[in-house]
Amino acid sequence: MLARLLNGDRRALARLLTRIENQDTDAVAMLTALYAYTGRAHLIGVTGAPGTGKSTLVSALTRALRERGRTVALLAVDPSSPFTGGAVLGDRVRMRDLAGDSGVFIRSMASRGGLGGLARTTRDMARALDAAGFDFVLIETVGAGQSEIEIARLAQTVLVVEVPGLGDDVQAIKAGILEIADVLVVNKADRPGAENTVRALRTMLELGHAAARERLRADFTVEDRVENTVLSDWMPPIVQTVASEGRGIGAVIEALDAHRAYLRSNGHWEQIERRQLELELLHRLRDGLLERLLDQLSMGEIGAVIDQVQSRAIDPYTAVSRMLAETTMMIDQSHSER
Amino acid sequence: MLARLLNGDRRALARLLTRIENQDTDAVAMLTALYAYTGRAHLIGVTGAPGTGKSTLVSALTRALRERGRTVALLAVDPSSPFTGGAVLGDRVRMRDLAGDSGVFIRSMASRGGLGGLARTTRDMARALDAAGFDFVLIETVGAGQSEIEIARLAQTVLVVEVPGLGDDVQAIKAGILEIADVLVVNKADRPGAENTVRALRTMLELGHAAARERLRADFTVEDRVENTVLSDWMPPIVQTVASEGRGIGAVIEALDAHRAYLRSNGHWEQIERRQLELELLHRLRDGLLERLLDQLSMGEIGAVIDQVQSRAIDPYTAVSRMLAETTMMIDQSHSER
Repeated sequence: MLARLLNGDRRALARLLTRIENQDTDAVAMLTALYAYTGRAHLIGVTGAPGTGKSTLVSALTRALRERGRTVALLAVDPSSPFTGGAVLGDRVRMRDLAGDSGVFIRSMASRGGLGGLARTTRDMARALDAAGFDFVLIETVGAGQSEIEIARLAQTVLVVEVPGLGDDVQAIKAGILEIADVLVVNKADRPGAENTVRALRTMLELGHAAARERLRADFTVEDRVENTVLSDWMPPIVQTVASEGRGIGAVIEALDAHRAYLRSNGHWEQIERRQLELELLHRLRDGLLERLLDQLSMGEIGAVIDQVQSRAIDPYTAVSRMLAETTMMIDQSHSER
Repeated sequence: MLARLLNGDRRALARLLTRIENQDTDAVAMLTALYAYTGRAHLIGVTGAPGTGKSTLVSALTRALRERGRTVALLAVDPSSPFTGGAVLGDRVRMRDLAGDSGVFIRSMASRGGLGGLARTTRDMARALDAAGFDFVLIETVGAGQSEIEIARLAQTVLVVEVPGLGDDVQAIKAGILEIADVLVVNKADRPGAENTVRALRTMLELGHAAARERLRADFTVEDRVENTVLSDWMPPIVQTVASEGRGIGAVIEALDAHRAYLRSNGHWEQIERRQLELELLHRLRDGLLERLLDQLSMGEIGAVIDQVQSRAIDPYTAVSRMLAETTMMIDQSHSER
């Protein structure tokens, strides 16, 4: 199956993605085998509020990349709801004319509950698409919020889509997303107010850019332990498009290529990957250690502790300290050189 | 300080909240001491898209609760950006007339980076407010998305604010938030289309309610280990308000009280708390175990593993398995009965 995947077999790829999404146990074996073939694709997160024409832009971008001979995989992540399935599917219909092209691969994924699980599944799927040899992996997220920020951390380049003339309070929310933008697109730029929007975005970027980026990446839970990352002096370009007519798409591609060239020229590409891998390892270790502890404790024992906490006989902080104090951890690295 | 806090000293409370937000080490000692006094407040998450008048509603609700003699603490969580500080502050200005009232306490908090840290800080702050004796703790989140879902898990009741006549694609996003609503408010109900919005929301709720709630709460990372929760047969009431004129606020309070009475009547109140405590314990254990492992490994040793992963000499899945295999964990419960 790995050989077929590396040879461009799309059915093998689709099957693997399904296994990753379902968290099948054999997905890990496949991911283990294909990991050596990763690290070549340009991963691009595409995000923006609903109504910005994000999906139309992604379609136009995909078409334009294909015209330039580059292959594209699109992963559309919908972290919301069973209700929204229809809407996302509707957007995908616009991609139908790309369906016969083996240089394009499109996959929608629904969220499975928690954000941690979603980010992990998305990362593994992007990894499979990377190994399958696509030049670009576009990770399109619906909505605007913390989920976008988490998913943006999977990409090398984050493209944020805006439109002219959104109200002030929407503007405030959008600001959160500006912090993660490497390339800004003002879509529907034939609408009134496009120039004003560009100017406002430019001002916000210039005022808040450095401080915001530093802040965004400064503070986590596990992530406290990871060295602080890649303070970039890249100033996001703002590109105006009318995606429905294909206008400005060439300039978007140039901006993406320029960002990749920038990251590659100064070692940031490797630093970003390193930080992503470090976080992944720490998260996996953390989950693995808990798993190990839970295997040794019965759910009944944990239940007894929770009984005490719920009855206020003990507080959760002390309960956890006590459980940790009762746990001895030893690391034997004598075999680590095999 | 604990005595002063329990006696209603607002300055002591404010100081504790700052220590929690700054993750001062002595905050844990305080939280440990005050935990025994928690579990009495009604924690209400208030969320909704920007432009719904959420902050105006919260102000009106606070005022109306005060008129009924109930005390209110408001925790406004802004999980976005340094850019947005001004906007949130602006909303808070409307609360100014409540400033002299010792039965009201208002606190804005900025996010410190990651969602996990934010949720943890919010939980600890809500706990402090609960111990301080407020009848209601309103946790207001800005925006719409995964962060709201995480924060909703801290509350017993989630109030979602909508407005008439949002576009279809916004509607799709809003759906994600319907899943977590216990009480729905259609604010600005004097606008055209309010009845249509109520009808549409009713239909969406009826179609998707049971399935969606089940799905939302079904699947996590750590949370896989926690028993599945509280499947409720509560159908969220939809209340129309014009918050700027104080219209409909009484009905909102009735809906909140009805939800609390419902949860209390069938044991769901305790089940929700139990599940929240269980997740908290597992998260704290997980972080504590990782901390322990990292204390034993040097960052240099982890760096060497990451070097190998980044050079594709080893894949991240195998690297983690190997590190876990080298780790021995033993639990000594002989002292657990002290």
